[in-house]
Amino acid sequence: MADAALPPRVTVFCEDAKQPQQDAYERVYPGGIGRAIGEALTAQGFVVRNAYSSQPDNGLSAAVLEETDVLIYWSHKAWRDVSEATIQRSYERILGGMGFIALHSTLVAPLFLRLLGTTAAMRWRNIGEKERVWVIDRSHPIAAGLPPYIELQDEEMYSEDFDIPAPDELVFISWFEGGEVFRSGCCWRRGRGKVFYFRPGHETAPTYHDPLVQRVLYNAVLWAAPQSSVLPVRRNERAPTAPEAEVAGRCSA
Amino acid sequence: MADAALPPRVTVFCEDAKQPQQDAYERVYPGGIGRAIGEALTAQGFVVRNAYSSQPDNGLSAAVLEETDVLIYWSHKAWRDVSEATIQRSYERILGGMGFIALHSTLVAPLFLRLLGTTAAMRWRNIGEKERVWVIDRSHPIAAGLPPYIELQDEEMYSEDFDIPAPDELVFISWFEGGEVFRSGCCWRRGRGKVFYFRPGHETAPTYHDPLVQRVLYNAVLWAAPQSSVLPVRRNERAPTAPEAEVAGRCSA
Amino acid sequence: MADAALPPRVTVFCEDAKQPQQDAYERVYPGGIGRAIGEALTAQGFVVRNAYSSQPDNGLSAAVLEETDVLIYWSHKAWRDVSEATIQRSYERILGGMGFIALHSTLVAPLFLRLLGTTAAMRWRNIGEKERVWVIDRSHPIAAGLPPYIELQDEEMYSEDFDIPAPDELVFISWFEGGEVFRSGCCWRRGRGKVFYFRPGHETAPTYHDPLVQRVLYNAVLWAAPQSSVLPVRRNERAPTAPEAEVAGRCSA
Amino acid sequence: MADAALPPRVTVFCEDAKQPQQDAYERVYPGGIGRAIGEALTAQGFVVRNAYSSQPDNGLSAAVLEETDVLIYWSHKAWRDVSEATIQRSYERILGGMGFIALHSTLVAPLFLRLLGTTAAMRWRNIGEKERVWVIDRSHPIAAGLPPYIELQDEEMYSEDFDIPAPDELVFISWFEGGEVFRSGCCWRRGRGKVFYFRPGHETAPTYHDPLVQRVLYNAVLWAAPQSSVLPVRRNERAPTAPEAEVAGRCSA
Repeated sequence: MADAALPPRVTVFCEDAKQPQQDAYERVYPGGIGRAIGEALTAQGFVVRNAYSSQPDNGLSAAVLEETDVLIYWSHKAWRDVSEATIQRSYERILGGMGFIALHSTLVAPLFLRLLGTTAAMRWRNIGEKERVWVIDRSHPIAAGLPPYIELQDEEMYSEDFDIPAPDELVFISWFEGGEVFRSGCCWRRGRGKVFYFRPGHETAPTYHDPLVQRVLYNAVLWAAPQSSVLPVRRNERAPTAPEAEVAGRCSA
Repeated sequence: MADAALPPRVTVFCEDAKQPQQDAYERVYPGGIGRAIGEALTAQGFVVRNAYSSQPDNGLSAAVLEETDVLIYWSHKAWRDVSEATIQRSYERILGGMGFIALHSTLVAPLFLRLLGTTAAMRWRNIGEKERVWVIDRSHPIAAGLPPYIELQDEEMYSEDFDIPAPDELVFISWFEGGEVFRSGCCWRRGRGKVFYFRPGHETAPTYHDPLVQRVLYNAVLWAAPQSSVLPVRRNERAPTAPEAEVAGRCSA
Repeated sequence: MADAALPPRVTVFCEDAKQPQQDAYERVYPGGIGRAIGEALTAQGFVVRNAYSSQPDNGLSAAVLEETDVLIYWSHKAWRDVSEATIQRSYERILGGMGFIALHSTLVAPLFLRLLGTTAAMRWRNIGEKERVWVIDRSHPIAAGLPPYIELQDEEMYSEDFDIPAPDELVFISWFEGGEVFRSGCCWRRGRGKVFYFRPGHETAPTYHDPLVQRVLYNAVLWAAPQSSVLPVRRNERAPTAPEAEVAGRCSA
Repeated sequence: MADAALPPRVTVFCEDAKQPQQDAYERVYPGGIGRAIGEALTAQGFVVRNAYSSQPDNGLSAAVLEETDVLIYWSHKAWRDVSEATIQRSYERILGGMGFIALHSTLVAPLFLRLLGTTAAMRWRNIGEKERVWVIDRSHPIAAGLPPYIELQDEEMYSEDFDIPAPDELVFISWFEGGEVFRSGCCWRRGRGKVFYFRPGHETAPTYHDPLVQRVLYNAVLWAAPQSSVLPVRRNERAPTAPEAEVAGRCSA
């Protein structure tokens, strides 16, 4: 009833600098992670666009953002390739209502940190180990259709304590074979925009090919999509004068 | 400055029905878990009283509760031994400001569920396995003085999803050797009272002898203790008439 | 995409005992508040059923609850007319996923208090005064389509401090002419169910005839409706044995 | 027991640019707001230092911050006088554990916004009207010793909706004579630091001379003070290698 008939328009941003293990990355993701995610979401019925850090305006021009309902973002070591202007432009669009889904190592990206207000610092270990992403809120829309946990065989490990503001909604907690835990699915509201952080997705693990991970992304896009138009970033404004008169009227009585 | 000079008065409630593995229980806790916790807290400088389910009023008479700042509670299969009157009396005292620390299997106790409003249902497995209780909020008072995690070698396992209201503050998340996670340290406010749930403490594991677990209890007592007098349970009340007059005065002007 | 094509099935419960000001009540709500709300929601396209406290099972039999996606509840002084069996049956259905919308004086109803875990005590004054229900989260689905505030000319006043658990989401705060404020739109999750409390609705004020108030109810029904089937209330369950074997395998290695 | 014997060291930052109504300001606050707050806190037993925007390093050098447990901040139109270096230095100190109390118009200060991640936009009206700051959480430490509300006769008005992340704890809600409400006392955690926003304090109103407002500041300093040493800002770090070996050992078994 309330939701629009049109599917959300998704832009998938992916840094396209050379990854530290570029060969292994290409074997798992020919064309990169952005392409893999984009294809999965297109198959699910969304209108999808890809954006890359090497493009003009990092692929996220004002025109592109205006046609974006939800921005999915995968960043890693090349976060410095994204300009301050792109960061601020995207940040303001999110505050205005555009959804934002930050994946894995995007926790180092200034855009994500600007939204959070903290460092998002954690501990990590990259030896390829088993991860179980447990659903802790079975009724959350982002967990729709999922089993009790998603098991990934060969992931990079991130560990608590994770320096984030307490999430407004906590959906997933990861278990790692080596003995650690991590808040892997975190929701925050910022301005009129919804922000979701999803942990898995190391560049040499086939995580984004996993149908359950793709279901998470599908759910997250629907959750993060704005309910109505995205608005310009807010500024302080003077309150209407009518109540002033009312006050004055009272006081003079 | 603001806090009283007197240490909190702690009552440690423990069911004293026969446990399923009574012999093993007694080997680890001669005199029971309540006694072990009571001795640890006494050594830390608190004024401690023990209460048992088999006592008149389950050891939690109105007089006892009136002299209790923080109630620590360990219950298991014998939760039916606690009377409705004791439950309601304790519940109202907590709403009035008495701290409440619910341990381990106390998640089946009606007093705890009455405070939460949910079932606290979870999954469990009791084969003795390694648990790591990770601190996820290093600056929380209940985590003061702790290392990144507490390791327990031989605990019962509890698993998500755990049917609780989202905690107001989440302090610990447990990792289990068998592949599960659990929100192990959860804070809620109810009325003027503070509620803390702490997961570990199977009756045949030496958990409450662990100095780090004892530190958690010490911290939790300080955190849960009321800042001022415990008050009677609240009822709806008529608002003062002064503002009414004020409204009338305005409207007649 | 994710949402079902079928509109939520709504049951509107209303106590039908005589109100203290029965004549004034009937002038504003011929047939009662339940009928007024039911007609408004029917006109908005929902499948609506009415239930009354004087009916067998208080109109909320197991069969009725099984066909209910969202339960709207208006109670006042006659909350004792609802049986313990009805309360517990409704409570368990909510934990299983049925939405619950508690209106105005329903804050005295045991069903609401069982979900919250507190007294919901407040202060009140009934002289008929202006209320402004401010939207504090403009992007919340329950605020969709609303102006900055809803103004009601002649309401009963409820005042802070309101003895509730901190809401998971706070949508509205009311301003009252006489000088008070109140958290008027509060969301909580309990089990798989969503709970929304909405303050306005004194029985002699035409609040539920207000189109903006009807919009709030419309939005709240959509927000509270379960995303999938309502499940039986949860109990603790034994964890699968597969991980046990895995642990054993590891430990014996 | 746990808290150190030493009182928190407080630095009161105040912009000392000329205010729009400088004469009126000086009549109410000879020497400025910073001086008034500093004297009140000194009288309450804290160790207090004053800092001004016109000083080198804006009075907030690294050396000063290292000797500061809680930073109180009053800013208005001259927020641009504070350098980026001062902002970032203070921001990192807060993430490390220094308490931060942001007063009134400080909601425009970049330091505050960097912590929040939003615009803190609101509506305002400055005609001098009555404000009532209602305590909505009577058991919160920042509300210790307060009556149900603090009444201020002649304040600037700020109105919802207020563009902030949902507070981790909401302590006060203001009522204004002209018909508005505002979340006036908001707590957030950022990193290891505690942040408190307190609304009242227009520069020509005698708000900071009010004993109840001074009690709020006293309470807030105690609440915000770090429990232990302030640490350097966190960075991602490699997890210990011991668990790696453990994993390897398991996998090879």
